[in-house]
Amino acid sequence: MPTENPTASRETHSATDVGSVGLVKPKSQHFSEPLELACGRILQQYTLVYETYGKLNTDKSNAVLICHALSGHHHAAGRHRDDDKRPGWWDHYIGPGKPIDTNQFFVVAVNNLGGCHGSTGPVSINPDTGHAWGPDFPSLRVRDWVHSQARLADVLGIGQWAAVIGGSLGGMQAMRWSLEYPERVSNCVVIASALKLSAQNIAFNETARQAITSDPDFCDGRYLQASKLPRRGLAVARMIGHITYLSDDGLGRKFGRELRSGSFQRGTDEEIEFQIQSYLRYQGLSFSNIFDPNTYILMTRALDFFDLAREYGDDPVAAFSHARCRFLLLSFTSDWRFAPERSKEIADALMHANIPVSYAEIESAMGHDAFLLPNARYEGVFHAYMKRVATELAEEVR
Amino acid sequence: MPTENPTASRETHSATDVGSVGLVKPKSQHFSEPLELACGRILQQYTLVYETYGKLNTDKSNAVLICHALSGHHHAAGRHRDDDKRPGWWDHYIGPGKPIDTNQFFVVAVNNLGGCHGSTGPVSINPDTGHAWGPDFPSLRVRDWVHSQARLADVLGIGQWAAVIGGSLGGMQAMRWSLEYPERVSNCVVIASALKLSAQNIAFNETARQAITSDPDFCDGRYLQASKLPRRGLAVARMIGHITYLSDDGLGRKFGRELRSGSFQRGTDEEIEFQIQSYLRYQGLSFSNIFDPNTYILMTRALDFFDLAREYGDDPVAAFSHARCRFLLLSFTSDWRFAPERSKEIADALMHANIPVSYAEIESAMGHDAFLLPNARYEGVFHAYMKRVATELAEEVR
Repeated sequence: MPTENPTASRETHSATDVGSVGLVKPKSQHFSEPLELACGRILQQYTLVYETYGKLNTDKSNAVLICHALSGHHHAAGRHRDDDKRPGWWDHYIGPGKPIDTNQFFVVAVNNLGGCHGSTGPVSINPDTGHAWGPDFPSLRVRDWVHSQARLADVLGIGQWAAVIGGSLGGMQAMRWSLEYPERVSNCVVIASALKLSAQNIAFNETARQAITSDPDFCDGRYLQASKLPRRGLAVARMIGHITYLSDDGLGRKFGRELRSGSFQRGTDEEIEFQIQSYLRYQGLSFSNIFDPNTYILMTRALDFFDLAREYGDDPVAAFSHARCRFLLLSFTSDWRFAPERSKEIADALMHANIPVSYAEIESAMGHDAFLLPNARYEGVFHAYMKRVATELAEEVR
Repeated sequence: MPTENPTASRETHSATDVGSVGLVKPKSQHFSEPLELACGRILQQYTLVYETYGKLNTDKSNAVLICHALSGHHHAAGRHRDDDKRPGWWDHYIGPGKPIDTNQFFVVAVNNLGGCHGSTGPVSINPDTGHAWGPDFPSLRVRDWVHSQARLADVLGIGQWAAVIGGSLGGMQAMRWSLEYPERVSNCVVIASALKLSAQNIAFNETARQAITSDPDFCDGRYLQASKLPRRGLAVARMIGHITYLSDDGLGRKFGRELRSGSFQRGTDEEIEFQIQSYLRYQGLSFSNIFDPNTYILMTRALDFFDLAREYGDDPVAAFSHARCRFLLLSFTSDWRFAPERSKEIADALMHANIPVSYAEIESAMGHDAFLLPNARYEGVFHAYMKRVATELAEEVR
């Protein structure tokens, strides 16, 4: 059986010794060498936007790659401006003294190809047509991201990552890295992920896509040319996603059946609205202002298509027998979209493939979202594992 | 602790001794006495459409009321025409020799007020305007259904139901019956139901409603006048509902990751479609051809609003202390929308209120939908309970 990191429970994580990476600035890297995609199409040129935190050491051995999830991007930590309301999406876990310690590591966070935050994707101009790619942007698989990330590593002179780290869809990228480039990954941290999606997961993604594509403003994906935006569809898609990223218990604790307006008094016909209703609507609407619908479709399809062991005879043990790194797996008790059982399947396969693996199931009421949120045990286990990675790096340098 | 029916496991349900109620014909009852609704508005007149199966005995003591769920109606058993593709929605459980045995019971199945299958609802003409009620139809609560069903019982001369039976939203009606008219219910069968919805349940309903109301063809609910129909929104709403009525495991067994078209072969860019995708789309589309969107909104809101114990100081024990009937509770292991925990809460409250209750948790991979589907143990427990009801009726008659 996979064992939990024995040092984890002794870790106490203090807020006083941690800090922020401070102000950060996205970088941009253009690639003019064609990239052959899994679908067979070729992307003649593309740009990746990324951020880095910490310093690359002289032998370039302390680099860590952060792979983002469905709606993530390259801005994982710090702030772009002093008055930014929020820091990067994983700021709680990346910074000086944090689990991904920028005093130890050179952290690289990339906006994936096909994204809508600066890297080449559906909102970029297709040089062949002069219009946005829109629905004509090639269908991507997780391995395409890994290949494009490897080219960025080449540019940065990083031969081997000290760790490739990701949650959810990001964890799929981390696993794929361990098979596509076994010699280039020293550690693989896979959080709240799975070897492949279940039919239920695909069903939720399909319903979200239907909400988008059935919005008349979707215009067969050519909404930008039509100066439209399928906001309503994207909002419903996000609402569906949002519910499934939270747990029943977590929603119950946060909202219960509290009313936002109206009353259940007999004989009153004012509009009754629960808190959860307005919260969800707000979440949907906010998201529809910042995310590209074609990108949402592309990302969810990459999630659906991912199946780590498919080309290894559907045998995850055979797949992982190609890996050369150590693994840390983390899951969260109330995560029903990427349940602990899915992480256990990964752990079991790694064990059977004789790959060193640490696994911890973290108690949390926050569902799948837990991987983004503060949690003392999660921080402790993660920190302990990364400290060992840093220690071993230091020993190698000596 | 609630105990499971001890005779249940000895029941063997044979298909050879059961039959169909055969051809049935809906009936219609008009009510011209105003009905005061929980919201304070008054419905001046209304019609209920219903079906009956079996024969009412001379002392009118063998009547059983079937309360339907979200998308159900009065056509619970038998066929309207010989060439009907499918029988009524609960045909597996209603008929001669079946758990709700029409050789023993006179079964009444009503289309709820606000429904779209013949009873007065949003698609009916509002006599004040000459147009369909649409979004102006009064907001309904479960108790309004119970009150209107009681009036139908009056018309039929039924003073006391031998049993009031319902699954899901139907179970909520059965429970409400036991409190609103304690002397008129002898047995209450509550299947896969809950004392109230959780925040997650409300969240799913809200997302479904958003899908409907954000469809431009919704026209603020006046789509009939505009000769439109928000089909796309209703289809997405149904897809959301459909996923949540099934279990992850059930979907996995039925569809897994089987492809309907395309292939994962590297270098092919044909459209990849999973079986689950086309199945869900088909379900959504079919539903949008037969169900009224305003009715869907009305029914889901009644679900959200239901909270059995609200007016009893939020104490289900205090609520049930008003009941005078016996209860059978059934739940299904893989039902995550109305989980067994919800039925156990009902059972516990009944126990503490000193109300006789039998409870069985049925092993099933079919999720919430299990209450509609064949299942040997479910049939056995249900049948055993109803046999006792029939036996006691016979003894009373003697």
